[in-house]
Amino acid sequence: MQTGPQPTDLSDVRATNRAVVLRYVRTHSPCSRADIAAHTGLNKATVSSLVTELIERRLLRETGLTENRVGRPATMLVLDGEPYAALGMQVDADELVVVAVDLGGNRLLTWRRAFGALDASPTETVTAVAKLARRAVGRVTAGGRTVLGLTLGVPGLVDTTGTVPLAATLNWRDAPVAAELRAALRDPGFPVAVENEANLAVLAEQRHGDRAGTANLVHLTGGAGIGAGVLVEGRLLRGGRGFAGQVGHLPLDPAGPACRCGRRGCLEALVGLPAVVRRLLPDAESDGAVVDFAPEIERIRALARAEDRSTLAGLAEIGRQLGHGVAVLADLLNPEAVLVGGHFAALAPWLLPAARAELTRRTLAPDAGGCRLDASSLGAAAAALGGATAALATVEAGRLPTPAVAAVG
Amino acid sequence: MQTGPQPTDLSDVRATNRAVVLRYVRTHSPCSRADIAAHTGLNKATVSSLVTELIERRLLRETGLTENRVGRPATMLVLDGEPYAALGMQVDADELVVVAVDLGGNRLLTWRRAFGALDASPTETVTAVAKLARRAVGRVTAGGRTVLGLTLGVPGLVDTTGTVPLAATLNWRDAPVAAELRAALRDPGFPVAVENEANLAVLAEQRHGDRAGTANLVHLTGGAGIGAGVLVEGRLLRGGRGFAGQVGHLPLDPAGPACRCGRRGCLEALVGLPAVVRRLLPDAESDGAVVDFAPEIERIRALARAEDRSTLAGLAEIGRQLGHGVAVLADLLNPEAVLVGGHFAALAPWLLPAARAELTRRTLAPDAGGCRLDASSLGAAAAALGGATAALATVEAGRLPTPAVAAVG
Repeated sequence: MQTGPQPTDLSDVRATNRAVVLRYVRTHSPCSRADIAAHTGLNKATVSSLVTELIERRLLRETGLTENRVGRPATMLVLDGEPYAALGMQVDADELVVVAVDLGGNRLLTWRRAFGALDASPTETVTAVAKLARRAVGRVTAGGRTVLGLTLGVPGLVDTTGTVPLAATLNWRDAPVAAELRAALRDPGFPVAVENEANLAVLAEQRHGDRAGTANLVHLTGGAGIGAGVLVEGRLLRGGRGFAGQVGHLPLDPAGPACRCGRRGCLEALVGLPAVVRRLLPDAESDGAVVDFAPEIERIRALARAEDRSTLAGLAEIGRQLGHGVAVLADLLNPEAVLVGGHFAALAPWLLPAARAELTRRTLAPDAGGCRLDASSLGAAAAALGGATAALATVEAGRLPTPAVAAVG
Repeated sequence: MQTGPQPTDLSDVRATNRAVVLRYVRTHSPCSRADIAAHTGLNKATVSSLVTELIERRLLRETGLTENRVGRPATMLVLDGEPYAALGMQVDADELVVVAVDLGGNRLLTWRRAFGALDASPTETVTAVAKLARRAVGRVTAGGRTVLGLTLGVPGLVDTTGTVPLAATLNWRDAPVAAELRAALRDPGFPVAVENEANLAVLAEQRHGDRAGTANLVHLTGGAGIGAGVLVEGRLLRGGRGFAGQVGHLPLDPAGPACRCGRRGCLEALVGLPAVVRRLLPDAESDGAVVDFAPEIERIRALARAEDRSTLAGLAEIGRQLGHGVAVLADLLNPEAVLVGGHFAALAPWLLPAARAELTRRTLAPDAGGCRLDASSLGAAAAALGGATAALATVEAGRLPTPAVAAVG
């Protein structure tokens, strides 16, 4: 991969400047052509030409609003919310989620469908994903929209071709998920991608979360498996093969509980969702293995709100272990913030005080290097929302979309 | 910090294209104007204009060589090695190092001076650094060169102003090293910067090491303290405050030996230089604390070459622990390679086989995610060489140097 300065030729400049205009409008709309020129440094003729092109392609539109200004009134511009949609999806242990957004990132739909991925093969899961995707595509295209892309988030390792060498929590190995999904959608006419769910969640944080715009950020997923999506200077950290962010087996306590990976005291074995339920509700598995964790988390929350002592003590201990794990990330990455999702967010009021104290105590840099530890504000569909955001990437980079495509058959 | 697409205005384009030309010549010289145009996509008139400017500013020169080609002979271009120099320095426990390079990165001088930084205050160390710097500046300017910059590498946390909140191995706290160094050099007329030594070492790897050009790379320094310099997609990972790369206290074994940070079984406490000497040469401290580790490392190498069983077993165990630490980095960062310096490089033949096996065993992704583990080829002056490389950054980004300055008084 070529690193370092890249030559600037005319079509790159045009795409880059298109991207600059779109980004400015996305973050400052409604705004005028003069506003864009003034704040981006592009000259007025260039802005005018780009805006004309973007209006023709239905990426921008004029609102007709004008402001009272000295001199001629200015026509205001916004992203055109109508002709396009982008889809994001995620596979959880017990459900599938699909999110559709418009060009401005505004939510068009959020659907959740129960599906037991733990008991299904990768192919069965892809079939179910494709079925839900087709329904969502049908809904948005019935509204007259063109789908720009679909990105699916899964837990585990996802390589750059969208193949999943390993998703341990789903028991998938060498699963060609992107290829199977494209085939199941029968060449839908828009790009279909597969990405690690924690990576997508951090992209959603960057765009939609409480700490949107933070350049050095980590989203830690809470679930059976714990994964990290990492932004470095605003870009996703992928690594040489796309496998970065595997933190579930950080070795925190070799004398700790057994982990499914064979070792003891890994981060997941200490603070993963099944471990938390097992530790705080010792009777939860008396009827058999837990498959739906949501009611168990609600029980824990109820006990904590009732100030049950052993629950609070257990949550504080788990919080300390979480803080210990986050401290390793803080030492290595020096993020500005770490946002925790899943059950960590659900139990945040009782986990995070202890976690923050341990984070500060253990990080080498003073004040944890400035790292803030908070619950993610994005809720249960964070990865799907990130997938939809990712599916907008090509247009947002200034590449014009291909003309409208037929709905998926 | 503004992330995302940046507007492209005319002076940015000029600087970027200057950078592209310089980079092409650096990596492909000698080459002709036509070669540059053909391989960078810049048009011939632009290349010609840039080359003229760069020759005027003594950044490029014509070699006078021509190739036999169809049509007119082409004048070949190379970086102008003569008018400029960049300096890099490092502070080790027992010595200071200064390296000077020309614009092409060719070594002009490498000096090492014994200095007991462990027994000196930050100010005393800065004074010694400035003295050595002045001598090196004097040497290169006596040869008619202009110094483009000086970057000093230190262990520990270095913030973006060049202040060192903590360098635990040197016992520095809140040391305003860059400011003191600039003052000690009495406004030298070139930029003076301070950076974490592991960061500088990985920059040197990117430019000069065996794996030069690798986009996702880690250099792990071996010494009393263990630090990581991390490249992500060819860019240095710094984090929100510049503190990224602190891996010395990765928790590998809470039942392990006591660490100076107060905990047990940190990476440093297991495989840092003093720990290695203590474990393999139990009598080394019978005369008092070891201050000069080089002879002890030589003793260990001699024992290993003589196939002393307990030394080989000890080195294998240390290698496994090193591999365990590297596996945590491989899981989190998915680097293409990890290069180990200092005593790790010196003991590589006996450490790395066990380390690689443990790395592969412990990393979640198959084949350690593709991560190669090797000894750094850069030797003892890696950080100083990286400092000199960093000091070239402004010119390499296409910003023209200010006219020649007088030598430092």
